[in-house]
Amino acid sequence: MKRLADIGEDALIASLVEELGASEPSEGLVVGPGDDCAVIDVGDVERWQLLKTDAIVEGVHYAAATSGERVGWKAVARVVSDFAAMGGTPSQLLVTIAMPPNRELAYVQSIYRGLQRCARSFGAGICGGETTSVPDGGCAMISIAGTGWVQKDQLVLRSGGEAGDVVFVTGRLGGSIQGKHLDFTPRVEESAWLVEHFKPRAMMDLSDGLAQDLPRLAYASGLNYRLDHEMIPRTAGCSVDAALQDGEDFELLISMPSNKIAGLDSAWRERFPDLDLTAIGSLIPGKCSPLAGGWEHFRSESSEEPGASPRG
Amino acid sequence: MKRLADIGEDALIASLVEELGASEPSEGLVVGPGDDCAVIDVGDVERWQLLKTDAIVEGVHYAAATSGERVGWKAVARVVSDFAAMGGTPSQLLVTIAMPPNRELAYVQSIYRGLQRCARSFGAGICGGETTSVPDGGCAMISIAGTGWVQKDQLVLRSGGEAGDVVFVTGRLGGSIQGKHLDFTPRVEESAWLVEHFKPRAMMDLSDGLAQDLPRLAYASGLNYRLDHEMIPRTAGCSVDAALQDGEDFELLISMPSNKIAGLDSAWRERFPDLDLTAIGSLIPGKCSPLAGGWEHFRSESSEEPGASPRG
Repeated sequence: MKRLADIGEDALIASLVEELGASEPSEGLVVGPGDDCAVIDVGDVERWQLLKTDAIVEGVHYAAATSGERVGWKAVARVVSDFAAMGGTPSQLLVTIAMPPNRELAYVQSIYRGLQRCARSFGAGICGGETTSVPDGGCAMISIAGTGWVQKDQLVLRSGGEAGDVVFVTGRLGGSIQGKHLDFTPRVEESAWLVEHFKPRAMMDLSDGLAQDLPRLAYASGLNYRLDHEMIPRTAGCSVDAALQDGEDFELLISMPSNKIAGLDSAWRERFPDLDLTAIGSLIPGKCSPLAGGWEHFRSESSEEPGASPRG
Repeated sequence: MKRLADIGEDALIASLVEELGASEPSEGLVVGPGDDCAVIDVGDVERWQLLKTDAIVEGVHYAAATSGERVGWKAVARVVSDFAAMGGTPSQLLVTIAMPPNRELAYVQSIYRGLQRCARSFGAGICGGETTSVPDGGCAMISIAGTGWVQKDQLVLRSGGEAGDVVFVTGRLGGSIQGKHLDFTPRVEESAWLVEHFKPRAMMDLSDGLAQDLPRLAYASGLNYRLDHEMIPRTAGCSVDAALQDGEDFELLISMPSNKIAGLDSAWRERFPDLDLTAIGSLIPGKCSPLAGGWEHFRSESSEEPGASPRG
């Protein structure tokens, strides 16, 4: 029998989506599984609703010794980053916390402070939640689900890329384990500015590492990609491999029509002087061939080092 | 330091809600934490949107040997039951599955079949999801978040009860561990019929046992309650204590104005001939004093028997 460790995350998700079968599209569904968020028509004339769920697990996405506030920030920031990846903003969040009964109340309260601090920073509210116990010795987990909004004419999918598009990335990649994976700033402002002024064709956030995520964007767009390894903006002290594979960068990966990028560089530098925007490659005709690397949740080789690294 | 095991679930939630602080109400929030679902105004003239999250944990809410299809059904049915408890129906669902990497792919696929079967049965769609690994030896968990809809004039909260209301319960209580906790039918149809024809003043679903949940409804309504133990409809073979405390009944608990129940009994029997509707007590003036019993997720005495019982 095949085990989860035998297949990659993408193959697992593909198999589960297949399990959902050819159901009639549900009420209001505009974009279903496969992008950073689902897109729903709830009757608003100008906006789509975005829906997203995500979870972080102790020993996988954070260490047991990490402060509750940083854990809470990370849990919400990951979801906020997904809304940004579609050109949207978060609205309402739901929190599920599963904890062994021997945990200190003060720790759980500090997680909530972190959740709330991140939610407020991006204009979101925590409207409900659930707490449940896990058996003693079981690992803690925090699951965040949320709604968001995107202007219909500003929605950006992974699948919109076209051959010849220039691929950009925000910030610097690699080394997130040093701390950024707990403290990162979701690129909500940057995304809002981009969709208003430069209309990306495709976009996603980098959670599992460029080596995994760029092929995903290219694949979703039905294309291949060219990546200029020398151009990848690296965190100080990081190798190209680290920048490709560490994961949890939570930067934006953006595909722009090449004839629309005149002026982007200078406009970006004026608006975001402290954040790089770097052209790292392009989308090209053909079929995507994923690079090795990045984080595969269920792969055997990765599970040899549980709890050691930050994970997307 | 206080641990989760030292305080009850209600006290934990109260402390976490307090942690959220006196934030400005977020966009569109109509009803926040404390009811079965959050209620959101998304601009629809006739309907509110409902938001809910819930999770089931292996060894707490289901046994490792339970078939994936039943586990999946239960995960979705619990959330559907919360929409019914507000007078609403589910719409879009998001699924987060956390699993150790050594689990069989076929098992996870069978969970998805169960999720999908339940979602379709109640007109909902699965629009997205997330999979993540837990460390080897960690417990599996399935978290479901969802949106639903309720007609504005049919929304029923826990807090709407008034002194003198008659309290009803659907079905029979107790003994859910024998199998019902995996196969139950959320009372969506019954709720829809009730809110259309008899307008309950307060309503919730019974997840943690009548002994916990009736005091919650009374407390939310600022009242006390009278419970006629002899009238509690019991599953065959169950004691009154079992009916009060077993939990996971997922029946509706309903508070109705006493002058509006003429004709309810006969109309109910005609519409739902196979399901009991029983008056079990009333709401009375005063402050609620919770009974002992029911399921407290984090209480020490309960954690002595992990994995043995179904849990709300």
